Amino acid sequence: MVNTSDKTFLWPTQQPRPLSDEALASVDAWWRAANYLSVGQIYLLDNPLLREPLTRDHIKPRLLGHWGTTPGLNFIYAHLNRAIQERKISTLYVTGPGHGGPGMVANAYLDGTYTEIYSGVEQSERGVKALFRQFSFPGGIPSHASPETPGSIHEGGELGYALSHAYGAAFDNPDLLVAAVVGDGEAETGPLATSWHSNKFVDPLVDGVVLPILHLNGYKIANPTILARIPEEELLDLMRGYGHKPYIVSGGFNEEDPLLVHQRMAETLDEVLNEIADIKARALAGDTERPRWPMIILRTPKGWTCPTMIDGLKVVDSWRSHQVPLSNARDTEAHTRLLEGWLASYHPEELFDESGAPVAKIAALAPEGNLRMSANPVSNGGLLRKELRLPDFHDYAVDVPSPGATTDEATKVLGTWLADVIRDNPDNFRIFGPDETASNRLAPAVFAATGKTWDAEYHEGDTNLERAGRIMEMLSEHQCQGWLEGYLLTGRHGLFNCYEAFIHIVDSMFNQHAKWLKVTREIPWRRSISSLNYLLSSHVWRQDHNGFSHQDPGFIDHVVNKSADVVRVYLPFDANTLLSIYDHCLRSVDYVNVVVAGKQPAPNWLTMDQAVAHCDRGLGIFDWAGTEIAGTEPDVVLAAAGEVPTLEILAAAAILREAMPDLKVRVVNVVDLMRLQSEADHPHGLSDAEFDAYFTADKPIVFAYHGYPWLIHRLTYKRHGHGNLHARGYKENGTTTTPFDMVMLNDLDRYHLVMDVIDRVPGLGARAGVLRQEMQDARLRARDYTRAFGEDIPEVTEWVWDANGIGATPVDVGLSTGGDNV
Amino acid sequence: MVNTSDKTFLWPTQQPRPLSDEALASVDAWWRAANYLSVGQIYLLDNPLLREPLTRDHIKPRLLGHWGTTPGLNFIYAHLNRAIQERKISTLYVTGPGHGGPGMVANAYLDGTYTEIYSGVEQSERGVKALFRQFSFPGGIPSHASPETPGSIHEGGELGYALSHAYGAAFDNPDLLVAAVVGDGEAETGPLATSWHSNKFVDPLVDGVVLPILHLNGYKIANPTILARIPEEELLDLMRGYGHKPYIVSGGFNEEDPLLVHQRMAETLDEVLNEIADIKARALAGDTERPRWPMIILRTPKGWTCPTMIDGLKVVDSWRSHQVPLSNARDTEAHTRLLEGWLASYHPEELFDESGAPVAKIAALAPEGNLRMSANPVSNGGLLRKELRLPDFHDYAVDVPSPGATTDEATKVLGTWLADVIRDNPDNFRIFGPDETASNRLAPAVFAATGKTWDAEYHEGDTNLERAGRIMEMLSEHQCQGWLEGYLLTGRHGLFNCYEAFIHIVDSMFNQHAKWLKVTREIPWRRSISSLNYLLSSHVWRQDHNGFSHQDPGFIDHVVNKSADVVRVYLPFDANTLLSIYDHCLRSVDYVNVVVAGKQPAPNWLTMDQAVAHCDRGLGIFDWAGTEIAGTEPDVVLAAAGEVPTLEILAAAAILREAMPDLKVRVVNVVDLMRLQSEADHPHGLSDAEFDAYFTADKPIVFAYHGYPWLIHRLTYKRHGHGNLHARGYKENGTTTTPFDMVMLNDLDRYHLVMDVIDRVPGLGARAGVLRQEMQDARLRARDYTRAFGEDIPEVTEWVWDANGIGATPVDVGLSTGGDNV
Repeated sequence: MVNTSDKTFLWPTQQPRPLSDEALASVDAWWRAANYLSVGQIYLLDNPLLREPLTRDHIKPRLLGHWGTTPGLNFIYAHLNRAIQERKISTLYVTGPGHGGPGMVANAYLDGTYTEIYSGVEQSERGVKALFRQFSFPGGIPSHASPETPGSIHEGGELGYALSHAYGAAFDNPDLLVAAVVGDGEAETGPLATSWHSNKFVDPLVDGVVLPILHLNGYKIANPTILARIPEEELLDLMRGYGHKPYIVSGGFNEEDPLLVHQRMAETLDEVLNEIADIKARALAGDTERPRWPMIILRTPKGWTCPTMIDGLKVVDSWRSHQVPLSNARDTEAHTRLLEGWLASYHPEELFDESGAPVAKIAALAPEGNLRMSANPVSNGGLLRKELRLPDFHDYAVDVPSPGATTDEATKVLGTWLADVIRDNPDNFRIFGPDETASNRLAPAVFAATGKTWDAEYHEGDTNLERAGRIMEMLSEHQCQGWLEGYLLTGRHGLFNCYEAFIHIVDSMFNQHAKWLKVTREIPWRRSISSLNYLLSSHVWRQDHNGFSHQDPGFIDHVVNKSADVVRVYLPFDANTLLSIYDHCLRSVDYVNVVVAGKQPAPNWLTMDQAVAHCDRGLGIFDWAGTEIAGTEPDVVLAAAGEVPTLEILAAAAILREAMPDLKVRVVNVVDLMRLQSEADHPHGLSDAEFDAYFTADKPIVFAYHGYPWLIHRLTYKRHGHGNLHARGYKENGTTTTPFDMVMLNDLDRYHLVMDVIDRVPGLGARAGVLRQEMQDARLRARDYTRAFGEDIPEVTEWVWDANGIGATPVDVGLSTGGDNV
Repeated sequence: MVNTSDKTFLWPTQQPRPLSDEALASVDAWWRAANYLSVGQIYLLDNPLLREPLTRDHIKPRLLGHWGTTPGLNFIYAHLNRAIQERKISTLYVTGPGHGGPGMVANAYLDGTYTEIYSGVEQSERGVKALFRQFSFPGGIPSHASPETPGSIHEGGELGYALSHAYGAAFDNPDLLVAAVVGDGEAETGPLATSWHSNKFVDPLVDGVVLPILHLNGYKIANPTILARIPEEELLDLMRGYGHKPYIVSGGFNEEDPLLVHQRMAETLDEVLNEIADIKARALAGDTERPRWPMIILRTPKGWTCPTMIDGLKVVDSWRSHQVPLSNARDTEAHTRLLEGWLASYHPEELFDESGAPVAKIAALAPEGNLRMSANPVSNGGLLRKELRLPDFHDYAVDVPSPGATTDEATKVLGTWLADVIRDNPDNFRIFGPDETASNRLAPAVFAATGKTWDAEYHEGDTNLERAGRIMEMLSEHQCQGWLEGYLLTGRHGLFNCYEAFIHIVDSMFNQHAKWLKVTREIPWRRSISSLNYLLSSHVWRQDHNGFSHQDPGFIDHVVNKSADVVRVYLPFDANTLLSIYDHCLRSVDYVNVVVAGKQPAPNWLTMDQAVAHCDRGLGIFDWAGTEIAGTEPDVVLAAAGEVPTLEILAAAAILREAMPDLKVRVVNVVDLMRLQSEADHPHGLSDAEFDAYFTADKPIVFAYHGYPWLIHRLTYKRHGHGNLHARGYKENGTTTTPFDMVMLNDLDRYHLVMDVIDRVPGLGARAGVLRQEMQDARLRARDYTRAFGEDIPEVTEWVWDANGIGATPVDVGLSTGGDNV
């Protein structure tokens, strides 16, 4: 059964014994066939079954791909097939060395999945030819395991995330086995090195099992690997230190008969699977001690089964087999013969029948239906995804009798809703964070609903730890991101809360996930998965505690470089807008949603009804804050995006309202940043007419922005009013320790914004000069106060919006709603 | 002796024995004083030596800082002082938990360094008050160990890099001990988890010694740490698996007398230092076996010595002591008394004399002069930095009889020069890379000069490995970056070569280093260090092998968000420009230089004289490629930045020259990207007049750019001609496997560029329509060819610049040179 999610499922055990001759032949034939098909993909354009002498013209003109890791991946796949056949365990195959793409495709082809999905690649000689031709060919498929590869949730172009993804897949899938191959090169990366500790976050009752297989083939691109060059006892210590019980399978060196290695692998795999079944049974019986999960170290030669020497140089068991060992296969007759001999060494005539289909003993090794690893629905998570049961976020709204009349910590309010999301979705929603869930103030509410997952030792006085908690905290942003990706890719839901500055740690992981999403959108059989939701707090403007090293709002800049079909950026500025936005994010699919929100006490500006309307539009005019007159254009537009900028813009508007009551000021807030882009560039983009209706085509715009100010220019440079737009935001200026001082340090303060207006609106007369002087004085006063007392001046900290100051009539620019934030 | 670099230096050994009463008292007094000063910094505005009853007004209104880790850092510092006193070993102190800033400042104050540097913070009661007040106060110093902190090369705001930095400092400093404290929270990060393996890259003869001290204080912000919650034997296995010989010092729990823990620590430290001396001696005697370097696990309670319980909750040995344990010290009389009792528990009256200076037994524990860890010149690397001996790069120039007449792999040519840089600077220059130095084609030349550092096992057939090689390769971008940062910060030189896409892995590390550089520029006593030089190859346009996952040119976008004083971006487009640019980069200080270059065979465009002039200007007109007429403005400007864009722009210019000989085309190349920015925004920025002289104020500009095209708009939106600028570059479109097909996929191809010109230059008449059709046909033909044959169409691959087609007269826009690229 696949995904029974039946916690009483008994994992089968079975006495280890040597493979029968028949089973051995079957496993070996599968392996040889997968190897043959892998070599064929890399090299052959034609003559796919080697039924005629190989000529130069049968060989691809450009040879691309990675051979070195492939025979090992095929070897493991064949053995897992045998075990699945016998035990019927739903198994997902995650391959860290994802550049062994030809192997993944070959196995999916052998078990029939590939042909089911891609009907043009049938199980026949013609199909084999099509399979070969398409590989790493213009208009074909990539050379890595990719979204196009059935059974894969893990590309492995960028290395280091195999175990994190594997554990993410295993969480809340109690009957799932995830066989995760870790390359020994990949094992040197930081993210992989810490991801072994994932085993302290697994509950044998609630979660599936990750079986790490460290594939020690000794070499990277051009170097030996570290783990292959330390004494075996040291490597075993390392794996034990990571909390595993290691098993070693070694063989294939010096052309050792692979049949011997098959027997070793089969026996070890049986032992290991029995041990896993025992652990599961012990857990069912009530044992809560953290198990020492088994893992396998598979030491086989890199490039195993390709020509041992080429042009006098060692290739097997060397870095020289990493990519295309015979890169000159077309260049000389001798090299063409060498390739022919290599291909023939697998005896394709024994592996494929007359029609070109795999022979019966190979086909028979494929498990049935969804038990085939390439067909496991877990690997196409959208098939299994159930929508979240979301409590009505309106019920969690904070009361806002008038703008700014109440104060809340936005993320803390969100936490009350998330607590109920957790309660209502006990087996498919998790929150991830690097020890910051409390600091980001989702606590205390979420901890009333669940604990933090913890399967290491418990001490007296521990709080909020729980073996099967729904909140996953480890001090590794990589781990949080990787776990969440694995969880989402297998059909579940979640969010990643993180300090804004340090989300850059996973810039590159975000890149890979965004690319995966972009490609899967174009693959019909890949079903939609939940969006990857970020909640970034402890944001750049409130680093009074930690200072300059914690100031970086540039993740947004990084994100918007990716495909507009995939990325969304939201800047809710109070509790109700955050609730509204996050409800949307948790409903959405196939996006990366970046939400930056405040965690410190801050004014609430909008009622929930207003917030919903505002977030639905993605931007809007705060008619209650401006002084424009219906039917006429404003003199100036004050715009803001972000929590602190919104506060400062409103304070500036209040100053102007008092000092220059006749000045027609419009206040605009942008909560969906992508609305600023042209509709041609982003699905959320405003049309030019809409943009002009909000921002005018020719009036000064003073824009206070949460991040680096030039992003606003980058998003709006095509707009009519761009020449009149002046953006302020964060710059790399240094550090201070009070919030308003920080705002002043970046010239984003209300006083500066008022001066910006004075400088840009013509004809303000003598009052302008006086006001400018007042603003400069106010800044100096504020600065001096912080230096003397270590906190912000009361006239700033105690400032509140005066709702009685409202003098404007409501403004309706007559615009439709837009974006997809509904 | 500090930095004798005398390989025959004998590391002293000494019989471990209990501390004498006097030594014990001295160590304990230092520790208490450092703790007192740390608490004082966090809490006190006044009454610094507690000479009157503590009142609310003596306490800071905003309490910021981190106490939890601080007593442990102080404890280690005191013990290292004792050992340094006895053994005279030059020691650098790297603290992973850099947020223990008050401790670092306190120790620097106690040993006198602080007062020497900051004369306002004298050793007196008044000085103590100044020390306290400035800490995490507006206008004062940050709460973390920071560039302002004497003795520090490591801020630790973002966690994970302590060991990488420590090893970077130790390389080529054979007599240096680097005591590196690893926080147990930090130990969960990926970068830290893999950085333990640095010990396979250390040569005991050539390099110094890193002594890792894992500070197991049990808790992070709000959680227990993993390594503190696994059985001790498992932790020891882990450390052994990492290749270390672990020692444990444990104590201080349940209010155990610290004097007992001092004795344990002193004895262990003596043992460990003796063992290090033995290892060094064995290496001198010719032993080449990789040593099992000792490391210490220090298990002490988090928050050690602060009030055990506060408001009924456990604080010592709990996450509650992480930041400010008594956050309400001003709120009630009882809390104020609790703080007073805490401060008094250190007995300040025994620690400071009448004047407020540390008493003699404390002062006596400080080592002399530069042996004080806070004064070690290694921590202010610019003091020790020697300029590189750079061979004249002109001697490595490739021959360019006419533009495009010869072909080279640019990075391979650079390798020939770098090989001699290595030869000429055998002890202060290293090249770092994640197993890509050969792939990026600095090989084979550099391997003729040196090997890759390797102190793990050697197998027969290994190539280019060497115990003391100058090239450092580990498959971890984090490790490469961290090692290089440590190496630079301690006064040496180097570069990091990496695939362009995966340099995003270190985005966040770059952030921290750029921030460090920005701040150090403003600190007079911090001396200039060598720039951090990136060499990014396997760039976005040549991912025919690896595809979409390897395509990302956004590191440039990330970099340009940082302070303009620090960041530089260069896009050399052939071998000679790369040589010229890199010579400049290796001479520069205090920058981050990002250089993106090609590694595939590509045309050489400029002679070395032309290249030097071009790079000196940072941009220039290719008069040989345009068709403008001196004295008149061109009809259109074709601009390029980057290797592939330059090729395509030139091909487009050639098409236009033939098809529309009367069209006045100017070809501009930008090699120093920051020249595009306004001079107000970047020191390299062109003035508006200069910009107009190159790009015109009102003619169409078609700009082919290496990266995301909107960066060109972001850099130029203030320019007069911006409204006429059309930028093309990389977009997230997917993948293909031939170079020109990839260029077409992104619409950056010559045919598209020609169509851009046709669309933007008015009055081209009937010929324009015909040419447009020809361009569309050419694209289709090229696309069809790749689909049929798997390689690019010969009319593209065989295209060469026809120097005989030159029809233009030289153009001189009369501009000065600019930038600092001299």
